[in-house]
Amino acid sequence: MTERLIYLPLGGAGEIGMNAYVYGYGPEGKERLIVVDLGVTFPDMDSTPGVDLIMADLAWLEENADRIDAIFITHAHEDHIGALAHVWNGLRKPVYARAFTGRIGQLKLEEAGIPAETIRIVEPRPHVVEAGPFKVQFVPISHSIPESSALIIDTPGGRIFHTGDFKLDQSPIVGEPFDPAMFKQIAEEGDGIKVLVSDSTNVFSPHPGRSEATLAAPLTELIAAQKGMIVATTFASNVARLKTLAEAGVAAGRSVCLLGRAMKRMVSSAQETGVLLGMPGTIGPEEAADVPRGNLMLIVTGSQGERRAASAQLSRGKYLGLEMKEGDSFLFSSKTIPGNERGVIRIMNAFSEMGVDVIDDNNGLYHVSGHANRADLETVHAILQPKMLIPMHGEHRHLREHAKLAQAKGIASEVVINGEMVDLSGNVPKVVEHIEAGRTYLDGSVKIGAMDGVVRNRIRMALNGLVLVTLILDEQDQPLGEPWVETMGLPKTGRGGAPLAEQIEDEMTEFLDRAPVKIISNDDKIEEALRRIARQVSMEEIGKKPEVIIVTSRLTDE
Amino acid sequence: MTERLIYLPLGGAGEIGMNAYVYGYGPEGKERLIVVDLGVTFPDMDSTPGVDLIMADLAWLEENADRIDAIFITHAHEDHIGALAHVWNGLRKPVYARAFTGRIGQLKLEEAGIPAETIRIVEPRPHVVEAGPFKVQFVPISHSIPESSALIIDTPGGRIFHTGDFKLDQSPIVGEPFDPAMFKQIAEEGDGIKVLVSDSTNVFSPHPGRSEATLAAPLTELIAAQKGMIVATTFASNVARLKTLAEAGVAAGRSVCLLGRAMKRMVSSAQETGVLLGMPGTIGPEEAADVPRGNLMLIVTGSQGERRAASAQLSRGKYLGLEMKEGDSFLFSSKTIPGNERGVIRIMNAFSEMGVDVIDDNNGLYHVSGHANRADLETVHAILQPKMLIPMHGEHRHLREHAKLAQAKGIASEVVINGEMVDLSGNVPKVVEHIEAGRTYLDGSVKIGAMDGVVRNRIRMALNGLVLVTLILDEQDQPLGEPWVETMGLPKTGRGGAPLAEQIEDEMTEFLDRAPVKIISNDDKIEEALRRIARQVSMEEIGKKPEVIIVTSRLTDE
Repeated sequence: MTERLIYLPLGGAGEIGMNAYVYGYGPEGKERLIVVDLGVTFPDMDSTPGVDLIMADLAWLEENADRIDAIFITHAHEDHIGALAHVWNGLRKPVYARAFTGRIGQLKLEEAGIPAETIRIVEPRPHVVEAGPFKVQFVPISHSIPESSALIIDTPGGRIFHTGDFKLDQSPIVGEPFDPAMFKQIAEEGDGIKVLVSDSTNVFSPHPGRSEATLAAPLTELIAAQKGMIVATTFASNVARLKTLAEAGVAAGRSVCLLGRAMKRMVSSAQETGVLLGMPGTIGPEEAADVPRGNLMLIVTGSQGERRAASAQLSRGKYLGLEMKEGDSFLFSSKTIPGNERGVIRIMNAFSEMGVDVIDDNNGLYHVSGHANRADLETVHAILQPKMLIPMHGEHRHLREHAKLAQAKGIASEVVINGEMVDLSGNVPKVVEHIEAGRTYLDGSVKIGAMDGVVRNRIRMALNGLVLVTLILDEQDQPLGEPWVETMGLPKTGRGGAPLAEQIEDEMTEFLDRAPVKIISNDDKIEEALRRIARQVSMEEIGKKPEVIIVTSRLTDE
Repeated sequence: MTERLIYLPLGGAGEIGMNAYVYGYGPEGKERLIVVDLGVTFPDMDSTPGVDLIMADLAWLEENADRIDAIFITHAHEDHIGALAHVWNGLRKPVYARAFTGRIGQLKLEEAGIPAETIRIVEPRPHVVEAGPFKVQFVPISHSIPESSALIIDTPGGRIFHTGDFKLDQSPIVGEPFDPAMFKQIAEEGDGIKVLVSDSTNVFSPHPGRSEATLAAPLTELIAAQKGMIVATTFASNVARLKTLAEAGVAAGRSVCLLGRAMKRMVSSAQETGVLLGMPGTIGPEEAADVPRGNLMLIVTGSQGERRAASAQLSRGKYLGLEMKEGDSFLFSSKTIPGNERGVIRIMNAFSEMGVDVIDDNNGLYHVSGHANRADLETVHAILQPKMLIPMHGEHRHLREHAKLAQAKGIASEVVINGEMVDLSGNVPKVVEHIEAGRTYLDGSVKIGAMDGVVRNRIRMALNGLVLVTLILDEQDQPLGEPWVETMGLPKTGRGGAPLAEQIEDEMTEFLDRAPVKIISNDDKIEEALRRIARQVSMEEIGKKPEVIIVTSRLTDE
């Protein structure tokens, strides 16, 4: 039997979020497997109200867990590591990561009661992790978090270069700069790179990306110019930005205070693992409260408008004894991720009402992206000279554009989305199988399938409101009293001015008085009839068709 | 008693949407009133699930309806005219508008069973509408809809210039160009302008705005370059853009078909009222289905990703016999309004999956804004030379920035938000009263107050799910059978693997077996106890605290 090299994205291909990629090598159906990244994506009220986290559906991976040799995590962003602690028990395989990523992962595993040693800390290239038929090296690459890594995945079927998330930054402040010479060498080793599996996030941004280092001067100038307290927000994990902001604050004669659990965890993990050197000393919130406003800078979580993060708390009033006042400034050293605009704008206006000046990224003066732009992607294609390119880490439109970009240069490329198993053994990618690849929701403490209907019912209640009917029938199938109607999420009164619930009750009573035995003795039929009445009366009275729950209780002779 | 001049925004000041402004002149508390604009804003799933439209709470205006002399509508955008038909019955005053705006308004009134003659069509300046102490002129000004007008409001207390929505466009394709000479004359008449009440939407956009006319060449070039069918979307009411798009399509040898009810209504109203001349002929969808794809252009509604509009329908499949195919192109000749990103991106990716090339506004090449930028606002300040400036039509941050801009030039200016009644009689605006100014929701066919709790309960059900408990007690206060639990929007099973509903029932049964009479005979107490059990068991089993409805039925001796 011939062996083959396969690629199977279960998350992250066709979306930006919940990255989960599988590579396999071996005889068809018996390939040994490795997993790259296990991330989450975040819920929203539109489609996933009440949900806590969204992960790739790993049912296929769990069924084939005996074929998995290892799990690799490229970096510590939630969309790459966030699911690890929630899904590891279904896989139970060793996890490999570099020191900082591993430290963040270990903290997550420990919270979930999984031994920290599950994650094995590895050195970057030239160190090689052997896992079944795979030889894997972590390749340092710049991104918006320390120690982001690409992976060289060597197999008997050829070399894969999996970029992870990356940008081309030769002065990234924290973490390793992009090293074109090393990339060139990687491309020249052995038979070169067979498949480049690449980040596609910024394929629509034409110009080369800018370096993190370009922000230091404008940020320092901006912070020095503020008269009151300045509060800056960015992603907690953007340790380089935290350092730049803190240094700018100190240069302006300010004491710096970090607010937000995630941010403190990131900084301490970065310091413990030696990736963050020279971070200025910071003070706690209690001490900060005593510092004159003009000498104080807060760096806080919540750049995406998250309701419970420090930014939102400050926009609502006092937080840990600190509060914003007229004459203070608030800086978004960040970009709003599409979909988060409402939350961010809510905070901006709340600050405006306090008399606080809000400064945003100002066309990139105070923020740079962590992803490679179109020109940078082309640079990488040119250096690595892959035979095939599979775009990943993008919505469908990003993947399609990236594939077109590669094809235009003569590189075989295909859009491959979650659930498509691709055979990479030949000269072009070939879809060979479709795997059920959906989403799993962490909802409270329970995992539910996206298609289970649970969330669909929540959305329906939110859009339509609810009518609840209880009916008691006696031993002779006669209604005991009248049906009782309650409503939730519906106007109390409608067109007629009379209470909606009473209108429905009256109509039901009238129906029951006339209903034949064959209906009234049959739970399904009576519920169907009552549901129809509830919806009809609601439509007439309030112009809405609500969700209806009918509870029929039958008293029995005992 | 001295007379005073007042301004009271009830909607639109502190938000972009549901514009509703009141001006008054007369003795304190007895001022005669006029209303300018009665618009809506649109609901979203985050804060207003299930709601159809959002309007300003007009309770104060209704209470003082006998003091209202007239209603003026500046232009036919939904955020200025959308509430008219829904609230007119509470006000019952004559409405004044120019021909196109009036035509759109009349169609809305007729649908609501209100006589079309309620709207009186008026000519622009120098024509004067006299309404109580007010002399009002409609001043033609360019915007993204035909016949947008500023209002000159002359009162014994001085001249107010209310800009409405505007941009400075000297070649707007459809509608009147900005006429600086006329503006200068308006400023020089009598004592000049006392108060400028001005659009603030684009105060953060530094450069002068661009003319609608700049789009013709790039759009024509773009459309000519497409090989398959091209579909373009923009706001239905942007009649100038529709004309530019249609002309570009015809120039490229394409038949043009308009899809979407709102768009056809706008075009026919514009043609009937003579504001749209020279619009190329269009074909219907049936005819379009027979045209070769390379010779066809559709112009469709749904630029903001609205689920039921033509764009979204086409992204899901066939619509009126037409469908998108690989090789076709889709153009957003529009900007995504903040908050609508998710819907727009969903459509972009659906088209990408079909192999359709999606083109967006491309940094303004294919779209220009309808609002005056910061530089344009400064131009207007300089020409009109008002003694005071009140920013309107903006979120708080826009109003604040606009007020700062005016103050820096020595113009007295204040941020005035919905519900703040301002006395404009002196040399500076002075807040004299706070009016209850909330939001009213149109929900189905019923109007409900934003604070009524109806929508809050929907949001709670969506976030927390619902547990429903029915308990029947007999004449001796003994439970008849066990409590019956149903859930909606919750996982069926939790931690233990047993059905959640049964777990709750078991716990409740155990409680009822032991419960003392003073609890079991008291509806409030028993419901409180059962609610606590439902939430506690849910928390343990599924990690969520759901909403709980308890229905206790007591059988009585009769």
